[in-house]
Amino acid sequence: MPGPITNIATADATSVTIRGRDLVNDLIGKHTFTEVFYFLVTGRMPDAAQTRALDACLVTLMEHGFTPSALIARFMAESVPDDIQVSIGAGLMAVGSVHAGTMEGCAALLTAGVKEADADAWCRRIVAEHRQRKEAVPGFGHALHKPDDPRTPPLLRVAKETRLDGRYVQLLLKLSSTIDAAAGRHVTINATGALAALLLEIGIPPEIVRAIAVVSRSAGLVGHILEEQRTDSARHLVRLARETIPYRDPE
Amino acid sequence: MPGPITNIATADATSVTIRGRDLVNDLIGKHTFTEVFYFLVTGRMPDAAQTRALDACLVTLMEHGFTPSALIARFMAESVPDDIQVSIGAGLMAVGSVHAGTMEGCAALLTAGVKEADADAWCRRIVAEHRQRKEAVPGFGHALHKPDDPRTPPLLRVAKETRLDGRYVQLLLKLSSTIDAAAGRHVTINATGALAALLLEIGIPPEIVRAIAVVSRSAGLVGHILEEQRTDSARHLVRLARETIPYRDPE
Amino acid sequence: MPGPITNIATADATSVTIRGRDLVNDLIGKHTFTEVFYFLVTGRMPDAAQTRALDACLVTLMEHGFTPSALIARFMAESVPDDIQVSIGAGLMAVGSVHAGTMEGCAALLTAGVKEADADAWCRRIVAEHRQRKEAVPGFGHALHKPDDPRTPPLLRVAKETRLDGRYVQLLLKLSSTIDAAAGRHVTINATGALAALLLEIGIPPEIVRAIAVVSRSAGLVGHILEEQRTDSARHLVRLARETIPYRDPE
Amino acid sequence: MPGPITNIATADATSVTIRGRDLVNDLIGKHTFTEVFYFLVTGRMPDAAQTRALDACLVTLMEHGFTPSALIARFMAESVPDDIQVSIGAGLMAVGSVHAGTMEGCAALLTAGVKEADADAWCRRIVAEHRQRKEAVPGFGHALHKPDDPRTPPLLRVAKETRLDGRYVQLLLKLSSTIDAAAGRHVTINATGALAALLLEIGIPPEIVRAIAVVSRSAGLVGHILEEQRTDSARHLVRLARETIPYRDPE
Repeated sequence: MPGPITNIATADATSVTIRGRDLVNDLIGKHTFTEVFYFLVTGRMPDAAQTRALDACLVTLMEHGFTPSALIARFMAESVPDDIQVSIGAGLMAVGSVHAGTMEGCAALLTAGVKEADADAWCRRIVAEHRQRKEAVPGFGHALHKPDDPRTPPLLRVAKETRLDGRYVQLLLKLSSTIDAAAGRHVTINATGALAALLLEIGIPPEIVRAIAVVSRSAGLVGHILEEQRTDSARHLVRLARETIPYRDPE
Repeated sequence: MPGPITNIATADATSVTIRGRDLVNDLIGKHTFTEVFYFLVTGRMPDAAQTRALDACLVTLMEHGFTPSALIARFMAESVPDDIQVSIGAGLMAVGSVHAGTMEGCAALLTAGVKEADADAWCRRIVAEHRQRKEAVPGFGHALHKPDDPRTPPLLRVAKETRLDGRYVQLLLKLSSTIDAAAGRHVTINATGALAALLLEIGIPPEIVRAIAVVSRSAGLVGHILEEQRTDSARHLVRLARETIPYRDPE
Repeated sequence: MPGPITNIATADATSVTIRGRDLVNDLIGKHTFTEVFYFLVTGRMPDAAQTRALDACLVTLMEHGFTPSALIARFMAESVPDDIQVSIGAGLMAVGSVHAGTMEGCAALLTAGVKEADADAWCRRIVAEHRQRKEAVPGFGHALHKPDDPRTPPLLRVAKETRLDGRYVQLLLKLSSTIDAAAGRHVTINATGALAALLLEIGIPPEIVRAIAVVSRSAGLVGHILEEQRTDSARHLVRLARETIPYRDPE
Repeated sequence: MPGPITNIATADATSVTIRGRDLVNDLIGKHTFTEVFYFLVTGRMPDAAQTRALDACLVTLMEHGFTPSALIARFMAESVPDDIQVSIGAGLMAVGSVHAGTMEGCAALLTAGVKEADADAWCRRIVAEHRQRKEAVPGFGHALHKPDDPRTPPLLRVAKETRLDGRYVQLLLKLSSTIDAAAGRHVTINATGALAALLLEIGIPPEIVRAIAVVSRSAGLVGHILEEQRTDSARHLVRLARETIPYRDPE
């Protein structure tokens, strides 16, 4: 049995090669982070439209205030102040099934849906199934952003301006109409729905959709850790936990 | 005592505000990941030169083949296949004092050096101190890339083309001449030296220099995890560890 | 809505209370680690039989040589040498669905099975279902330990000697006979099967079975990290990865 | 150059060997977790006194209520509910220089001090140096436990009862008298001081002292994660963070 090979990178004394490209002469100073990130995960250098769309997705996800991931990063910054990468790494681990889940779920749904011959029937079936289970369709509804998630329109605008409003975006919109009709009221397409559609349009594999959120959030966590060094909100929250979650002897 | 405040982000039903900017109308689709990352850590939106320099730094650091961080991410992908963020987070934690250390050390050195009145005397003192301790000056020398680290020239070229070859870059070059003179041979400025100087030129605080490496590497790890799903190099390496590191009873 | 409360611990200037017990006067020096661990997760102090069984389970799982968790801990020890807790924490994260999965799967199976009126019929159904899906029944078979996992007999012996060979152990044995009959050959009860049964016998909730493995393994990883400081097997494996996994340009 | 070897473990079809011992016949059911943990890190099986001392140390450290490590584990349990080992691992990473630091610092101090010919002079020098730097001597003083840390007497009692109150414990007590004399008031020996002395008495290497805390705390975190599944204090704290740390636009 042949052993594994790698297509990612190699280096010798005078050169570094990344996926067949010369890092030194072709990439550094010639391409942006976003372009090379796309290149590393798809194997293709993106065109201008794909780059603009991926940048829009990455910017949308970078920062969401006091999320569990930001709070974990801040607690860790208090406890392990000399290794910033531990705070970033630990915070990112919270970008999991609960918080990035609907983006992944919506991407899986759209990936399945575009293969269906009758899109209208598929939308009706998906909506009926979720209503029966009393579950939100992934990518729809939001606890805070009502009636509409404000991040969705700029993402759909980027899709339209870059002509990336193809079959995934169209299916998302059709699903949206079907949901509204079934609910008898407007339910927002939330940011995770718009992101899932846009990432699929530019060829990001659905199983990597969550990783896009993780990379994006890594940048946001740096800001939280920097602020934590000045404000010490972790100690504030430890004190609040002790004050507001009373101890009782078990029964 | 007043409690902590945050300057990072807030959201209500119809808007998201990030460091005083409107995410929806000012950032998504208007700025790149690299620009908003810079904005999050410095509080200022970068100009074109700063953006190009930060992109060059981020691209340089994304991928280095089979580093400990990549191997950790691959082992984790084998063990925890359904939570890609755990593999990314664990891999990033290895971007620590050993592997990102010289970049941080060089940034600290240059930050101290630019405050000195006599740069030549300072360079001679730093070089003499390191020679006496038989230590490399952080940012100089490389085990593989000899005689010259090929990643340094494109970084210095970007610095020159963007007129970001200011006092940090000049001090790095002066330090380089001093090292070569003292050693009686050419010692390369390695990538971490050039990166440290360039990041300081664009106003990245020295204590965050390591975090730039972490964010950059997060993108590279996604590529490794994707490849691992197909090639299973983790199992190959577990087998090699068992075969090549023999067990002996302790004495 | 009332906020959360905690039953775990509280402290004041002169005392520490853990789940209603006085740490200072009742626990330190009076009970073993294993006893207090059991107490913390079940709320009851174990009797001698339960303690012996839990110790046997913990000892079985502590050390398995070059597992992915040990290798991750070693790589991290090379990269982050000054924070041993990062190496331990990262290594433990690999004790996930793949490696502790069969223990958890077997515990879930036995928990369901003991509620069935007709144990024989249930065993036949479970075995038939797994054979149809060409999957091993969790807790049975082993790649290395053939024909019998040597760790299973001492665990079953402890169960017998402590009279903890109750309904879970009996169901495991019945399942074993059914598997052997269906396969026409002997298939070992592996350690994870015996552990699952024994942990259920002492009242460990099935959803915590994996956590027992994690705590146990934390001790083993300390030994690996100590050895790594002397032997530097991480660098050896990085070198082997580069030498044995060749780079090819992508097609 | 010969490659690395390992003294830790090996396995074949019918046996598992751990540091020269037969896991199946010598360890499972014969020794406790605490004994085998000691064996794995020192290479020697402990006697009854050493086992009792290590158990006392492990029990002291298991649970401290809402520490940063417990809160991180709880946040992670909310975000990654299906991988309990990620919550445990992330929580443990916070047992770092800030929280386990004084134990490690005290162990380093005592290790240096026992080599000194004139213990009184050494104590006076150490105390004077720390007073001049306005720093607490590691292992002394406590923010909550005043005037005396209640966990210290039972640890010292175990040391005395097991005749493990040797040179490290004696030096700790001498240091305590010197501190009290210099301060003109009583300063408590805190738990980390007593633990450091006791762990050194039983032969735990000072560089592993922190790892003892990590293993101990892993057990405590399981209790927090179990409770979190019922009480959802993580969501409560996210809400409190948003309510009590107000957002302000940066200036």
